Order: sequence, then structure tokens, then C-alpha cells
Amino acid sequence: MDLKAYIEDRKNIVDGFIESYFSTQPVRPGALQQSIVYSLSAGGKRIRPVLCMAAYEIFGGRPKDVAGFATALEFIHTYSLIHDDLPAMDDDDLRRGKPTNHKVFGEGMAILAGDALLTEAFSLITDPSINQLQLKASSIVKLAREISIASGAHGMVGGQAQDLLSEDAEPDEDTLSFIHHHKTAALITASVRSGGILAMADEQAMTRLTRYGNSIGLAFQVTDDILDVEGTTEQLGKPKGSDEKMKKMTYPKLYGIEESRRKAQALVDSAVEALSVFDSKADPLREIARYLLIRQS
Amino acid sequence: MDLKAYIEDRKNIVDGFIESYFSTQPVRPGALQQSIVYSLSAGGKRIRPVLCMAAYEIFGGRPKDVAGFATALEFIHTYSLIHDDLPAMDDDDLRRGKPTNHKVFGEGMAILAGDALLTEAFSLITDPSINQLQLKASSIVKLAREISIASGAHGMVGGQAQDLLSEDAEPDEDTLSFIHHHKTAALITASVRSGGILAMADEQAMTRLTRYGNSIGLAFQVTDDILDVEGTTEQLGKPKGSDEKMKKMTYPKLYGIEESRRKAQALVDSAVEALSVFDSKADPLREIARYLLIRQS
Repeated sequence: MDLKAYIEDRKNIVDGFIESYFSTQPVRPGALQQSIVYSLSAGGKRIRPVLCMAAYEIFGGRPKDVAGFATALEFIHTYSLIHDDLPAMDDDDLRRGKPTNHKVFGEGMAILAGDALLTEAFSLITDPSINQLQLKASSIVKLAREISIASGAHGMVGGQAQDLLSEDAEPDEDTLSFIHHHKTAALITASVRSGGILAMADEQAMTRLTRYGNSIGLAFQVTDDILDVEGTTEQLGKPKGSDEKMKKMTYPKLYGIEESRRKAQALVDSAVEALSVFDSKADPLREIARYLLIRQS
Repeated sequence: MDLKAYIEDRKNIVDGFIESYFSTQPVRPGALQQSIVYSLSAGGKRIRPVLCMAAYEIFGGRPKDVAGFATALEFIHTYSLIHDDLPAMDDDDLRRGKPTNHKVFGEGMAILAGDALLTEAFSLITDPSINQLQLKASSIVKLAREISIASGAHGMVGGQAQDLLSEDAEPDEDTLSFIHHHKTAALITASVRSGGILAMADEQAMTRLTRYGNSIGLAFQVTDDILDVEGTTEQLGKPKGSDEKMKKMTYPKLYGIEESRRKAQALVDSAVEALSVFDSKADPLREIARYLLIRQS
């Protein structure tokens, strides 16, 4: 299969949804809208919504029917990037090759743009007008709960807080694993599971999707850590070695590059294995997992 | 009726709920939990959850049955205070007489505690274990949507963004009205309406609750502006005149103190009038409205 075309097509659905969303519901003041749209349009790969759609498609649905729900995951991801880049957090000036939100709009507006995106994710999930499939309210509640838990204190925010506290600390296996599971893998797993929830997948299928999501979520972070050491500034859209500069706890630091690579490979193998019960409609998820090992950005 | 005892009783329900919530579901890292609990326990009046419960009680329900839903409103309110106090926003060192969150835990952790509380509000609303009344999923979806819209870009965050942009600006009626409607009144209205949604109130009742909420929401902000000019540091829990210092756009600045007082009185009258269709079970809401005019903090 042509993974590039597959992803491009789903990415276009999400981009189209985002573009129309804030233009049909303009935000006042205009600077807040600009700040939100700036980061949403900053060239993200839309990997979380794509994962949600790809998981949904295993069960025979069409990706555009869940575009709004999938986009909520991108709102959450984008908010987390805006807040992570703030001076009080990772203090990054560049993101995907462009100045970070607070560099353009100021810290106060960047904090508010993040707050707005996080909140809007839940307005979106509960918006009857995006529920083209007439999904049952109980599925919507399940979805909102899945995404909020994965993003909050017991998920992504917890991971980010531990990451913040662990700068300068000696890396240890337990802390690193906690950070990666929570900071990155939790929302990626929720993205995959969201596709299953939207398709009303049975428990066995959900277990498989969960295992797949956890594995690629961790693989994603391990390869990210490796890229930060080995990638070029052009590939990364920001100076390489920023983890080192921030004294971040990373896989390469704890295990070395070679062992990190082996771990990433094992995680991808385990992700693909988790999908063994599904037919060829799960091929995009299989290919996405394999792609993680060769990605350059 | 004894308003003080009424509020005290509901406040205790919310305080009890909050106390057990994070101790039964501890957050890692501990510093994030401490930062969250610090601000949640900083002596808030719990006015938003009390309004939700009081509106719910009009229709015959018991306040403790909706404690979890009502507490979600306090999570949102508390997050907004933590973020508003940040150096990039209002830069306040004191809140309710205690050092603000970022003064104790640092800016990064304060941002994350706010993010966590905002997200947790939606985990809470969608938590089946707090739904003691077996409310229908469609009511939960409606509630989550109500609260997210009131808090987000088209509500509270939009108001805060306009407030931030309007520092140093000459006050004008339209901007001041926008800020107050969105920054304060939106979430207060949503709190009152939430009680109606939880009670499955009919449309006519919802219209009345909305009008009541809007009126007291604005009255609340006008009296807040007046207190900032006239209150003592002890009453306010922070130095008086901080609006002036921050060159905030306020009612007293635009209309003068006397006219602001008249506006507050008219808003309270309109709030009480909106409740005319309800029996004595709406007395707590009536008394809360009247209390706004004489409050000292």
C-alpha cells in the first residue's frame, strides 16, 4: 500500500475540517484566533487524528465520518506543544521550523491559546453537528472520558510534570518509562482507542488496539529521542541536541543509541503483532508502525 | 432563610468531594498533586458549584447527588485562577491571602496544574462512578458541552484574552461588556444552567435560569471591580487597587463608583425577577443574588 498517499488523504480531511472550523465560528479577540490558528496550521503531521481514523477504518467506516472527533485529538496535541514550548517549560524558540507561539503572540496569549484548544476539544467532541453517524450519546461520553484521562493529570500532563522535574536528574529506568508512557504514549494510545470506540469495537478488539497504541506510542518517543541526537536541524525544525541542552531524560542517554534502536524495533514488532487478528484493513496501522523506524522527522 | 448555613452546607459537600477525589486517585509526580490540591484547597467560596446545586434543588433534587458534576465547575474555576495569576497574565503574588500557585510551585508546575484541573473537569463529568442518579448519557454530553463552551475560546478564555489585550487601553463600553460577559458571567451562567441540565429542566425554566445566571454573573464582576477599589487588603486577600495597577478596564473606571453600584443593583433586581416563575425552592438563588450587593470579599 501507498502509506504516503493514505496519510496525505486523511491529513487533508483534518486540515479541511480545521480550516472551516474557526472560520465559521470566529473567536474574539482576533489575536486569540490568530494564535490558535497559527499553531494548528504549523505543519503538523496529524498523526493522532490519522491513527484514530485508521483504527476506525479497520471496522469498515469511512474516515471523513469521524473527522471532527479525530480533530479533537489534534487540538489536544497542539495545546500541549504550545504549553511545552513556553519559557517556564522547555523554552523552545522554534517548532517545525517556525517561531513558537509565544515568540509570535507573547506568553500570555500562548497560554490562553493552549487553554482554548484544550477546552475546544471537548466542545468539539460533544458538538451534535459533527456527529454525522448519529453515534449514541454513551459512545460520546466514553470518548470524552478516554481522551480526558489520557491528556490529564493521570496521563500527558503527569508525564510532562515528571519530565519538568527530571531535568538535570540522573536518568533511571522507572522515571524514564513513566515519562514516556504518560507524556507521549497515553494520547497516542487514546487516539487509536478512540477509533475503536467510534466503531463500537468489542472488548477483544479494544485490547488489541490498546496494545498497538502503547507500543507505537513508546516507539514514537524512542525514535524522537534518537532523532534529537542524530537528526539535522532542518529535519527536526529546531536545533538538534535540545534534549541534551535541557538535560532531558532520554532513551539514548540511559541505554545508548544502539540499544534504543533495538528497543524501537521490538516495540514496532509488538505493535504489528497486536494487529494479527485484523484483516488487511489494518494495513495502514501496520505500515505506520514500520514507518516509525525509518522516519527522518 | 439562613443563607450562610445553606452555602456552608453545600460548600462542605464540595470540599468533601474534592478531598476524597485526589486522595483516592493520587497523581504522579507528587509535586503536581500538591500544586493541584494547594489551589483547590485555598479557601474558595465554591460559588459556582453552590449555584449549580441551588439551581438543581429548584426541581426537587438533593445537592449531594450532583456533587461530582458541581465540583467540575470548581476545577475549571480554579484552573482559571492559577493561569490568570501567572506573571505573563495578571502577575499576582497573592490569592485569598496565600501565595499564588506559581510562587510556591514555580511557573511550569502552575501551568501544568491548571492544565490538569481543566482536563480533569471533563474526566469528572464523564465518570460513571459519580453519576449516582443514573443520568442519561445525553444529559452528560449536554453538560460537558455547556461547560466547555462557557470556558473556552467563545467564553471565559476569550474574555481573559480580551482583558489581557485591553490593559493600558482607554475603557469603552463594548469592550468592557465583552470582557465581563465572557471572563466571568459565562462560567457563572453555565454553573446555574448546569443545575437545570442535571434536573432535566424544560426550556422555559432554562431560559429563566440563563437570565438569572447572566445577571448575577455580571453583578458579580461589577461588585468585584468595586471591591478592588473600596475593599481592604484583608478582605480581598490581595492588595487593593490591583486593577488600577494593572490598568485593567473596569466598571468604576468607565462609569464611576456610584453608577457602578446602580448597575449592580439593577442586575440583581433583574436576576431575582427572572426567578419569579419558581417557588420557594428558588429562595437560595434569590438570596445569593441579593448577597452580592453587600459582600465584603
